[in-house]
Amino acid sequence: MIVDLTDAQLRRALPTKWGSTEEGTVPAWVAETDYQVALPILDAVGAAVADGMLGYAPWHDTLQAAELDAAFVAFAQRHWGWTLPVGRSTVVGDVVAGLRLVLETLAEPGPVLVPTPHYPPFREVVEVTGHELVMVEADPDADDAALDLAALERAIVESGARTLILCHPHNPTGRVHRRHELEALRDLTRAHGVRVVVDEIHAPLVLPGSPAFVPYLSVDDSAVLVTSHSKTFSTAGLHAAQVITLDDGDLAAVRGVPHAQNGGASVLGMIAGTVAWNDCDDWLEALRERIAEQRDLLEKMLDERLPQARVRPVEATYLAWVDLRAYGVERPAEAARAHHVRVAEGSDYHPGLAGHVRVNLATDARRLGLVVEGLAAGVLR
Amino acid sequence: MIVDLTDAQLRRALPTKWGSTEEGTVPAWVAETDYQVALPILDAVGAAVADGMLGYAPWHDTLQAAELDAAFVAFAQRHWGWTLPVGRSTVVGDVVAGLRLVLETLAEPGPVLVPTPHYPPFREVVEVTGHELVMVEADPDADDAALDLAALERAIVESGARTLILCHPHNPTGRVHRRHELEALRDLTRAHGVRVVVDEIHAPLVLPGSPAFVPYLSVDDSAVLVTSHSKTFSTAGLHAAQVITLDDGDLAAVRGVPHAQNGGASVLGMIAGTVAWNDCDDWLEALRERIAEQRDLLEKMLDERLPQARVRPVEATYLAWVDLRAYGVERPAEAARAHHVRVAEGSDYHPGLAGHVRVNLATDARRLGLVVEGLAAGVLR
Ligand SMILES: Cc1ncc(COP(=O)(O)O)c(C=O)c1O
Ligand SMILES: Cc1ncc(COP(=O)(O)O)c(C=O)c1O
Repeated sequence: MIVDLTDAQLRRALPTKWGSTEEGTVPAWVAETDYQVALPILDAVGAAVADGMLGYAPWHDTLQAAELDAAFVAFAQRHWGWTLPVGRSTVVGDVVAGLRLVLETLAEPGPVLVPTPHYPPFREVVEVTGHELVMVEADPDADDAALDLAALERAIVESGARTLILCHPHNPTGRVHRRHELEALRDLTRAHGVRVVVDEIHAPLVLPGSPAFVPYLSVDDSAVLVTSHSKTFSTAGLHAAQVITLDDGDLAAVRGVPHAQNGGASVLGMIAGTVAWNDCDDWLEALRERIAEQRDLLEKMLDERLPQARVRPVEATYLAWVDLRAYGVERPAEAARAHHVRVAEGSDYHPGLAGHVRVNLATDARRLGLVVEGLAAGVLR
Repeated sequence: MIVDLTDAQLRRALPTKWGSTEEGTVPAWVAETDYQVALPILDAVGAAVADGMLGYAPWHDTLQAAELDAAFVAFAQRHWGWTLPVGRSTVVGDVVAGLRLVLETLAEPGPVLVPTPHYPPFREVVEVTGHELVMVEADPDADDAALDLAALERAIVESGARTLILCHPHNPTGRVHRRHELEALRDLTRAHGVRVVVDEIHAPLVLPGSPAFVPYLSVDDSAVLVTSHSKTFSTAGLHAAQVITLDDGDLAAVRGVPHAQNGGASVLGMIAGTVAWNDCDDWLEALRERIAEQRDLLEKMLDERLPQARVRPVEATYLAWVDLRAYGVERPAEAARAHHVRVAEGSDYHPGLAGHVRVNLATDARRLGLVVEGLAAGVLR
């Protein structure tokens, strides 16, 4: 059910991941998959194009926005047992655009905490909105990638931060935060008057056998959620994401901005999202199984070729955070690129951290093998 | 060659213009046309969707961005005799997003002048970027809609403005600024150290018989151009526009922002734009003839039903700025809405100005007749 695309197909389909990578190099960097988009989505978007739905997107209070909202509500109920009321979402173009909008409209003045490693646009969006950035760095030698609540509390007290950006499940570590951890985070942030803004774009990608996904808003109703179908269903270029807030004042603030501040969504993206949330459960199931296979394969190949590499269990996402410090190479992604493999440099996610890479494993066995070979060629000397 | 869509087709195709308007009311407000998108564009976008091109858009230095840039350069040469070097554009999601980015990256601190009436997001974008807004109001009784250079100069001196947003051709007045006016504006702004940011989204819509379009950058190489194929070719929802600057430092500044600050473009929009600039000249010619017919028809019907209405010649755009003050109705768009016609209220474009509406005339004769009837029913008492 998951259809692998050929190199030639991918070079056309994905101008960023593939098209901006030199031919002959295997791209395993930006978070896009090498699989065909689910057919119900391709069909619905194709039909919408044929019907000329290329005009301005209505961002709330209209049919397409209501359908997208209702579809996400139903998905959350089916998959996570979360009863989210309808009508709480505002459509934005992208998750990052939504984070920017939330910081502009809801964040109190004051520093923003970003647990680190983190998806690099988190720090960009903090800087673009004029907030002070406070990175709370995880210990790369910790047993697991759980949030370090003690370190977060210290940073809140020291910096006076008023906002925290949480990534759940976590990119790049693949961690699914546990319910008790989320509850502890809620108690901690409430005690210090810190608002949590949570990015759950990877939530549908919790892999078989992993701990269950617990939506953060289900434990903390004062948080703001930014999410999208776009990562799981590979439609990021269509531009539709959702900002979800349970507080009426927050909702009014987010919706109250002029079009100039929230004009990025597209009708095609909203249609894609509606179909993705409503009609793609089987495909999603197949995707998760496929990603779990790729993950197991990556672990096996690393064991063989780079036995000192350390990867914590990838519980969610199709991204593996690989610790290669044992091999003594400062910038392993740069080293691998010379051997025709493009992975993401760990220091992009954790500034100053040496010897890590983020590998995108959503490809086929052959390419993943080439990725491991290229990494090995880069770091073994 | 211009295909009129039916009401039912339009209600599906255009969720904002039609879908957000109550059934039974004729929508002639937001700037979208009631015509089918040019077939070469529908075909190219449809093929791209089938090939799965739904991923991240590369915004410069890649094939799709280079093709869009080259296509605009060729269009500008063919249509306006303007030799623009290649490689000067940065892809953004929308013209308004581009204006925001330009104000954020290139505008010096200080007030921004916006000649008024103006497209409302101009003032939104000034406010969102934290600049002081200075509106320079045109005299609604002036013979024509030429820029009032003396008033602009006074406002610059009084306010200390450092930036001016020019709309050329002008929405909502339909004016094509003349070469000598543009040269005078250049001299005036240079003398006072004011940078011009020009929005030329309506440039391809200069109607047959109107004065020739003169690209502002061809007379002032220190200005910044923001433009898109999206208005002329009805693809605004696909999200691709271009920021064009002739200065290397400006180009580097605009390109140097993080993805979080310029992530709104889509691959589909870039493909649509490339085809629009390259392969749709015949369709565009037909569109301009059709719009000119609609304009003439509107003038004729207004003469008959609302003889005291005043419309200056619509030289470009498919928007007519109609002065109905003679009928003594403060908010004529509101009055018309009660009679099942939705036009744009003039005071949205010129705050405080009574008795004006902006009519979108890019529809068919029947609907345009209904629009005039609804306006008449609203203002004649
Ligand atoms: C955690 C996280 N948030 C957001 C995004 C990007 O979302 P968008 O393209 O909607 O801005 C990504 C992409 O990889 C991501 O990993
Ligand atoms: C002068 C002008 N600029 C910009 C726009 C909108 O452009 P975009 O949708 O690319 O932001 C319009 C839409 O009508 C317009 O009239």
